[in-house]
Amino acid sequence: MQFASDNTGPVHPRVLDALVRANEGYAPGYGADELTRAATARLRAVFEAPEAAVCLVATGTAANALSLATLADPWSAVFCSRSAHVQEDECGAPEFFTGGAKLVPVDGEGGRMDAGALRAAILAEERRGVHGVQRGPVTISEATEWGTIYGPDQVAAIAAVARDFGLPLHMDGARFANALVRAGCSPAELTWKAGVDVLSFGGTKNGLMGVEAVILFDPQRAREFELRRKRGGHLFSKHRFLAAQMAAYLHDDLWLDLARRANRAADRLAEGLVATGQAELVHPAEANMIFAHWPRRVHRTLFAAGAQYYLWEGTLDGGPEEAPLTARLVCDWSSPPDAADRFLAQFGS
Amino acid sequence: MQFASDNTGPVHPRVLDALVRANEGYAPGYGADELTRAATARLRAVFEAPEAAVCLVATGTAANALSLATLADPWSAVFCSRSAHVQEDECGAPEFFTGGAKLVPVDGEGGRMDAGALRAAILAEERRGVHGVQRGPVTISEATEWGTIYGPDQVAAIAAVARDFGLPLHMDGARFANALVRAGCSPAELTWKAGVDVLSFGGTKNGLMGVEAVILFDPQRAREFELRRKRGGHLFSKHRFLAAQMAAYLHDDLWLDLARRANRAADRLAEGLVATGQAELVHPAEANMIFAHWPRRVHRTLFAAGAQYYLWEGTLDGGPEEAPLTARLVCDWSSPPDAADRFLAQFGS
Amino acid sequence: MQFASDNTGPVHPRVLDALVRANEGYAPGYGADELTRAATARLRAVFEAPEAAVCLVATGTAANALSLATLADPWSAVFCSRSAHVQEDECGAPEFFTGGAKLVPVDGEGGRMDAGALRAAILAEERRGVHGVQRGPVTISEATEWGTIYGPDQVAAIAAVARDFGLPLHMDGARFANALVRAGCSPAELTWKAGVDVLSFGGTKNGLMGVEAVILFDPQRAREFELRRKRGGHLFSKHRFLAAQMAAYLHDDLWLDLARRANRAADRLAEGLVATGQAELVHPAEANMIFAHWPRRVHRTLFAAGAQYYLWEGTLDGGPEEAPLTARLVCDWSSPPDAADRFLAQFGS
Amino acid sequence: MQFASDNTGPVHPRVLDALVRANEGYAPGYGADELTRAATARLRAVFEAPEAAVCLVATGTAANALSLATLADPWSAVFCSRSAHVQEDECGAPEFFTGGAKLVPVDGEGGRMDAGALRAAILAEERRGVHGVQRGPVTISEATEWGTIYGPDQVAAIAAVARDFGLPLHMDGARFANALVRAGCSPAELTWKAGVDVLSFGGTKNGLMGVEAVILFDPQRAREFELRRKRGGHLFSKHRFLAAQMAAYLHDDLWLDLARRANRAADRLAEGLVATGQAELVHPAEANMIFAHWPRRVHRTLFAAGAQYYLWEGTLDGGPEEAPLTARLVCDWSSPPDAADRFLAQFGS
Repeated sequence: MQFASDNTGPVHPRVLDALVRANEGYAPGYGADELTRAATARLRAVFEAPEAAVCLVATGTAANALSLATLADPWSAVFCSRSAHVQEDECGAPEFFTGGAKLVPVDGEGGRMDAGALRAAILAEERRGVHGVQRGPVTISEATEWGTIYGPDQVAAIAAVARDFGLPLHMDGARFANALVRAGCSPAELTWKAGVDVLSFGGTKNGLMGVEAVILFDPQRAREFELRRKRGGHLFSKHRFLAAQMAAYLHDDLWLDLARRANRAADRLAEGLVATGQAELVHPAEANMIFAHWPRRVHRTLFAAGAQYYLWEGTLDGGPEEAPLTARLVCDWSSPPDAADRFLAQFGS
Repeated sequence: MQFASDNTGPVHPRVLDALVRANEGYAPGYGADELTRAATARLRAVFEAPEAAVCLVATGTAANALSLATLADPWSAVFCSRSAHVQEDECGAPEFFTGGAKLVPVDGEGGRMDAGALRAAILAEERRGVHGVQRGPVTISEATEWGTIYGPDQVAAIAAVARDFGLPLHMDGARFANALVRAGCSPAELTWKAGVDVLSFGGTKNGLMGVEAVILFDPQRAREFELRRKRGGHLFSKHRFLAAQMAAYLHDDLWLDLARRANRAADRLAEGLVATGQAELVHPAEANMIFAHWPRRVHRTLFAAGAQYYLWEGTLDGGPEEAPLTARLVCDWSSPPDAADRFLAQFGS
Repeated sequence: MQFASDNTGPVHPRVLDALVRANEGYAPGYGADELTRAATARLRAVFEAPEAAVCLVATGTAANALSLATLADPWSAVFCSRSAHVQEDECGAPEFFTGGAKLVPVDGEGGRMDAGALRAAILAEERRGVHGVQRGPVTISEATEWGTIYGPDQVAAIAAVARDFGLPLHMDGARFANALVRAGCSPAELTWKAGVDVLSFGGTKNGLMGVEAVILFDPQRAREFELRRKRGGHLFSKHRFLAAQMAAYLHDDLWLDLARRANRAADRLAEGLVATGQAELVHPAEANMIFAHWPRRVHRTLFAAGAQYYLWEGTLDGGPEEAPLTARLVCDWSSPPDAADRFLAQFGS
Repeated sequence: MQFASDNTGPVHPRVLDALVRANEGYAPGYGADELTRAATARLRAVFEAPEAAVCLVATGTAANALSLATLADPWSAVFCSRSAHVQEDECGAPEFFTGGAKLVPVDGEGGRMDAGALRAAILAEERRGVHGVQRGPVTISEATEWGTIYGPDQVAAIAAVARDFGLPLHMDGARFANALVRAGCSPAELTWKAGVDVLSFGGTKNGLMGVEAVILFDPQRAREFELRRKRGGHLFSKHRFLAAQMAAYLHDDLWLDLARRANRAADRLAEGLVATGQAELVHPAEANMIFAHWPRRVHRTLFAAGAQYYLWEGTLDGGPEEAPLTARLVCDWSSPPDAADRFLAQFGS
């Protein structure tokens, strides 16, 4: 009954196999090896972007912060949703890497950024010369921190607003695969064809050990990114081991397969929760995360039975037993069906 | 004939095995797992430092820059040797992470920092209030970038100068194991007992895939380090896979064994070079690196035969065939004896 | 009819006289002169704070940003009101000087920060270790950007919340004099006695040419402030000319006299506006600024007649003539009574 | 006998008069006033650069650090002379404003940067991709910190090297006027015609209260400079008082007149020193500063008699009475002839 996070699960065996296979003899360091070339080519093919620049890093925070630093000036406003990982969960990494840009939260439903709210937020920034921060990049999360997704049209709507003001669009795709398989379109359609300039393409939450690819659809920005990556301590000397993971991830569509498994596990769990009659979904579970509430009493039972997940709102102590508390449940590719069954069984007991 | 760098070689099989073993089921993220606890305990035992704080990161640049940022103020002078990795090879990472500290090169022999020169350099900084940068941390590399080492007395001599001015001492131990087995003392004797406050304890160049441990002998500094690590994008969510590498590294003294192999390979190669009568060592090869010069003509032959190493001074073209050019040769734990033999054979041909 | 800003008015003649008198012969640079000593002593006396450290700078942005940088870590949340100058009008200076802290807007009435909202905002920040930014300093503006003030009890209420969490309190007193003469208490009562740790004590908006004093009631923080000031390019070599202004400002209570004049001018104008029956105050005019709305038609008339002020909400074009638009009117010590009369006369025409 | 610094002297009366005259009624803030327009036009005329952008700031450190930040990337090497003010006397302001660039000292005679040494220093930086900092702007001081100057040909020689590598050239002209009147050429010839891209045009050390103009001969860079100025807290609200000083400085060539006076005072003092037979010039006194050495015994006499200047090398105590110690003597426009006479008289006593 492990639903704490998609970073607590194991690495997929084919990824480990790839690491073992990559460990043959010598290979040039810092990304000059064959495996890196192959992973780059594969990513370009998957995204139908033969010119795109690809840079691998090991953490999502690095991918996002380096991307935003490349797109923003130190005096930029960076428009993000209120619950964005860059705003809430990176200890100010974007501020650090950009040299002090200001994140401006934009409202929206279900963890998404609303295109109209974005336009209003951009218009509200600096009309007076140099006194305020200057309009800068827009960043959205796909899937969002609330487990919802943007369809390609929704991405395009955000991109259209950004383009109206000449602002670049970044996508934090820590759970890109989960969003993509739900959206039912191509990787290109959900990114550059919809107007995304730079994508943090996540792997770590979907079966890798620790690799994210930053895809810069405009390769002009790549040199700056590479300098920032090195200077940020994020350029790996034994780079082949990042590349090997990414190559295995893309091979035979493993990434899509793993995302589908995670989403299906979330779907089944969400349906089961609703079927108990005691739980209510806060948002539709569109990716691999469920936000739902049910009585404090049932949370108590679940934790006592060893279930692992986060209370997103409320605490176990300090209120009536029937009061609803919001939980976050995350499924990953390895979530076993019987874990959901055992979890749901607690509702009946 | 692969002597380009100790980061081009493979990962030791026992390290890969450890990754596979670590991949069992779920584990809490961000370092709250059992493997991290075990690796920390093991490092404390190895360094006889039960109170020390241990933080794992994936690159040497991260280890060094985060360490210096924790020890320095933005307005600090950071005293380092002229050839230090932090000065020459990190694209300004220390300046970035510290918020703009100034690295002050200090002279010395063989890549080392001279204690007297350090005292002079410290005395030369800011005697006039706020006009110049302020005296800050001292950092030395063990082994140095020129393949020499500091014995415990030499470390203590540097530390004594730093202490005279109340300045902390950092050690960049990217090749700490290679230095230690040559110095023939205990890890504690080469570090905190000699006056080192913070150690970047390298693993990547000695058989790991990508793990360095920062050991803060004064755990008071750990909280700041941890915040900087997170903010720098260097806190791994699937942290167990860093810990598993480090644990395997320390288990049964694998780290010492690998370092001895690398040093022995370097020793044999150095002796062989001298024996050719055509090569001359620039510095004694005390760790796993050799700096030596021999005629341009011979370099040409070696490269033609497929040898891989860096010309440290001079270029293949543009001078007399008999002119000496300096090479850097690096051995690692996996350097096969016959590679050295084939390399040396080129001198006779 | 000049009500654009209190930085468009002239310098008080006694301040200019002081500059001329200060221009006698030689004086040591960088604040080691007699005038600086005298101004410091005078500020300490005025604030009944004999131990306080005093640092002069030339702009309000420098005073605020250097203060916050001294109180915050790069990974801090800085709690400010939504309309704070540091948030809206300094082009990210606090983010720059702190090394990337995150400003967290806190709600409240009339441009003030509400103590309860502050507590909620602090509680909402980081309960999870290192993932989010860490709770840091609180900053309030006295008077606020909406022309209201905090009485000493209101300052104390904010300070009490900050103290509950061990957080320091900064006051942006760009219009401190205007607030003080309205509050009717002593400088000490409105600052350190109420719990303020660091004050940006403004002079530029109240008759000086360009001087603000940062008063650090805890002098322990002064050394860091001084280094940041120098490093920020804000330490003046001919420092006596900053000190001379500040000394003249405090001499014979000139600062209080000028603030009273400005406030009285604002009072009269506010009363006159209300009396027209066409204008409505958005907030009570407690300092030297008025926020009021009246019909677009009247704005048009006023601008045509040469009145100078900012439309704070709405634009001259694009709506019905009777629609109310909000204006900001600022009075300073030099605002002539007849300007208000002429201004008000436009309402009748 | 006041020779401590050219920032300890008084402001020229015509500058004070200009401040008084500027204090008439209202003027728009932040540089939108008529005086700023006039000062800008005058500077463009003086420099025969009708397109140049002009930005006023109040300190030399601000002028230099903002200029370098505009020209450099955070990962840049900034090439400067070993004794440059930016390297030695600004508490790391360039590092702070650039976001962590690395200052690379270049050798030369008499405080100048040698063109050949510059070429070598540039060539020595980063030939290996992203591992080291990247080649960035060159900055020279005119006059130098050792009281020597670059003639236009010498500036052009430096500029030619910079241009070979596509690097911009900044000139720290804190004592530009002193250098110019000695060089005997036009302001344009000593700057943009010789290849200077951005000039910090000093006024504070030559009779102003606190104003430096940054002249960007390529106005494309101006917008970034202005944002950095605001964000750095260096944009003055009552900007007319900076402009008034600068206008007075240029009016009727006051700036050249004051520089000539300072240089003449230095010339006479230097000649007098040599004539004593006890003093020896360390460098030719080409601007308004003298570096000379004479016996410790005579220093003792001079200080006892109330002379004010800095010992640049050596200390009063701790050596033989006849040992030579180096002094720095600075003259400014107000240095009275009899001060030099009284100073020299101590040598005979």
